[in-house]
Amino acid sequence: MSSCTPSNRIVRACRRESVDRTPVWLMRQAGRYMEEYRNLRMRYSILELIKAPELAAEVTLQPIRAFDLDAAIIFADILPPLEILGLELSFQKGEGPVIHNPIRSPQDVDSLKAPAVEEGLGFTLEAIRLVQQALAGRVGLIGFSGAPFTLASYAIEGGASRNYILCKRFMYEQPQAWHKLMGLLAEMVGRYLCAQATAGAQVLQLFDSWVGVLSPHDYRTYCLPYSRRAIELAQASGAPVIHFGTGTSGMLELIEEAGGDVIGVDWRIDIAKARALLSEDRAIQGNLDPVVLFAEPSVIRAQAAAILDAMAGRNGFIFNLGHGILPGTPVEHVSMLVDFVHEYAGR
Amino acid sequence: MSSCTPSNRIVRACRRESVDRTPVWLMRQAGRYMEEYRNLRMRYSILELIKAPELAAEVTLQPIRAFDLDAAIIFADILPPLEILGLELSFQKGEGPVIHNPIRSPQDVDSLKAPAVEEGLGFTLEAIRLVQQALAGRVGLIGFSGAPFTLASYAIEGGASRNYILCKRFMYEQPQAWHKLMGLLAEMVGRYLCAQATAGAQVLQLFDSWVGVLSPHDYRTYCLPYSRRAIELAQASGAPVIHFGTGTSGMLELIEEAGGDVIGVDWRIDIAKARALLSEDRAIQGNLDPVVLFAEPSVIRAQAAAILDAMAGRNGFIFNLGHGILPGTPVEHVSMLVDFVHEYAGR
Repeated sequence: MSSCTPSNRIVRACRRESVDRTPVWLMRQAGRYMEEYRNLRMRYSILELIKAPELAAEVTLQPIRAFDLDAAIIFADILPPLEILGLELSFQKGEGPVIHNPIRSPQDVDSLKAPAVEEGLGFTLEAIRLVQQALAGRVGLIGFSGAPFTLASYAIEGGASRNYILCKRFMYEQPQAWHKLMGLLAEMVGRYLCAQATAGAQVLQLFDSWVGVLSPHDYRTYCLPYSRRAIELAQASGAPVIHFGTGTSGMLELIEEAGGDVIGVDWRIDIAKARALLSEDRAIQGNLDPVVLFAEPSVIRAQAAAILDAMAGRNGFIFNLGHGILPGTPVEHVSMLVDFVHEYAGR
Repeated sequence: MSSCTPSNRIVRACRRESVDRTPVWLMRQAGRYMEEYRNLRMRYSILELIKAPELAAEVTLQPIRAFDLDAAIIFADILPPLEILGLELSFQKGEGPVIHNPIRSPQDVDSLKAPAVEEGLGFTLEAIRLVQQALAGRVGLIGFSGAPFTLASYAIEGGASRNYILCKRFMYEQPQAWHKLMGLLAEMVGRYLCAQATAGAQVLQLFDSWVGVLSPHDYRTYCLPYSRRAIELAQASGAPVIHFGTGTSGMLELIEEAGGDVIGVDWRIDIAKARALLSEDRAIQGNLDPVVLFAEPSVIRAQAAAILDAMAGRNGFIFNLGHGILPGTPVEHVSMLVDFVHEYAGR
C-alpha cells in the first residue's frame, strides 16, 4: 500500500484508505470572497477567466497559496459544456448565466451538435495540465462537471430558476426527447470527466447542484440512469468520483445507487446520519453550512468540531462545506477553518 | 365515536380516525392561479384583501365553490403578525414582502411591542367567523400561522432571502437576543392559533416554510423549543395541529419532536418513507410536487395515484401538495386532481 502524501491524501480518503490528517477542500474555494480573484475579475469576465488556461490556472492556485488546503479544484464553470452542444451562453451582470437559445422542444434536442469534448473544452484540460505542473505534487487536483440533470435544467430553463416549471414540464410531457437529451449529456459529462483525469485531475466531482428540486420518484425515473452512466464513464479513468448534490436528504440511497466513490452531502442532514444511511463501501464528504463561515470563530470551531467528532476514527471522510463558499465570506475565517480541521483531527 | 361528515372529515384524519374518503386540500388553494382571485387583486392589494374580513372570507370561499375540497383555509398571510410587534410591512410589486425596519440588533428585539393578538389580528379572526357562517358545516376550516423561525427570518432579513446570512448571523452571534425574539414569537404564534380556533377554525397549521435552510443541529438548538411551545399553546385549544415545513427530509424526527398531530412533508421524500420515519401516533399530510400540476392529466393522475397507493388502507392521511399552488397552475388540473383523489381513494 502506498503511503499517504500531501498530493494523494484526498485520493486515499476517496478510497477509504488511512490518511495522516482529514483532507479538507471547500467548494468554490476560488472565487469572489478573495481579493486576488476580485482583482482579476475587474479585468476579465468569468468566461474569459475560464477560457484562458493561464488565467484559469492562476485562479485555481489562489486559494492554494492562501490556505493549507489538501486539494485544488480546477477553476471552471458547469455551463461551458452546454456551448459545445450549440447552446449560446453568457453571464449577465447580477443575473447569473443566461442561455440565449434554450431547449424548448424535441426539435431543439434533435438539432444539438455532437459534443467535441477535447476540442471544445480544451481550455479547461490545458488549465488542468498547467495547474498540475505548478502544484508539482504539493496537493491533489480535482476536476469536475455538472451532472446531466443540472445541465438539462439550465439548458431548458435558460438560466437559474425558482421552480423549474419549464424543465419539469419538458421531462413529464416530452419523455422521449428528455431521455435523448439526458443520454447525450451523460455521454458528454462522462467523456469530459475522463478527459480531465487524463489531463491530470486525480479526483473527479459530479455536481448535481439542483437535483434537490426533484421528488425521489422523478429522480429515479428521469435522472438516475444518466448520472450513473456519467459516473461509470468517469470511473473508467481510474480516478475516484465524488457525487455531490444539495437537498438530497430524502433520497441519499438513490444518490448512492447512481454511483460515486464518495457521496457529498449538504448541511441539511447530520453527517453521522448520512454516514449511517450510506453503504460502508462509500466515502463521505461534507457538510458545514457555508453561512457558518460568516459567524465568529468560536461558532465556526464548534460546528466544525461536531462534524469531525461524528467522523472521528473513520476512514473515508473529506471535510468540506455543504455547498459553495458564499461571496462576502471573511477570508480569515476560511483560513481559520482549514487550520482547525487539520489541528482538531490531529488530536 | 362520532361519524364522518364532510365538515369533520379533515379533523378525523388529523386524529387518525376512519374517514369515508381521503380528505384533500391544497396549500395556497386561494390565489393567483384563479381568475376570481386575480379580478379582486386588480382592485385591492394583498394586505387590503387580508385586512377586510368580508374580502378575506370571499377569497377563502372561492376555491370551495370551484372545487370539491374537504377544507377551506382562511385567506391570510404569515407576515401581518409581525406588524403587531411594530415591524412595518408592505408588499412590493414583483419583489414580495418587505419589512422596512428589520431587526438587526438586540436593541431592536428589546423595542418590539407586546403583541395584542386579538386586537391587532382581529380582521383574520372576524374573517374566520364569516367563513364559518358561510360554510354552514359543508367542509372543514383551517387556520394557520407562520412558525417562529420563518417569522424571525423575515423579521431579520427584511424580506425573502437566498442564503439567510443576516438571520443566521444573528442566531449565531446574538444568541440571547435570538432566544428572546423566538420566545416572544412562540407565545404570539401560539396565542394567535388559539384565537383562530376560538373564532371557528377546526384545524390549525403551523407553516415553517423556510426551516429547511437550517442544519438539524441549528434547528434543534435555535428553533425546536419555540415551535414546540407554539404548538403546545395551539393544541390547548382542542384543535389538531398540522406541522408543515419544506426541506425537512433530513430532520423529520426533529419536526416530529417539536410536535403536531399531523406532520406535513414536501415532495423531496417518498411519502411511504416519511410515514415509516414518523411515529404511529402522528398523521401525515402531503406530498405532490406542485409543478406536477402543470403537466398533462395522465402525469398528474399517475403521480397522485402513487401517493394514494402508498397510503392506502391507513388512517391519518391528508392529501395535499408538497408546497403551495404556483401562479399559472391550470385551474382545470386542480379540479381534476381533487376529483381524482376522491374517486381513486374510493376504489
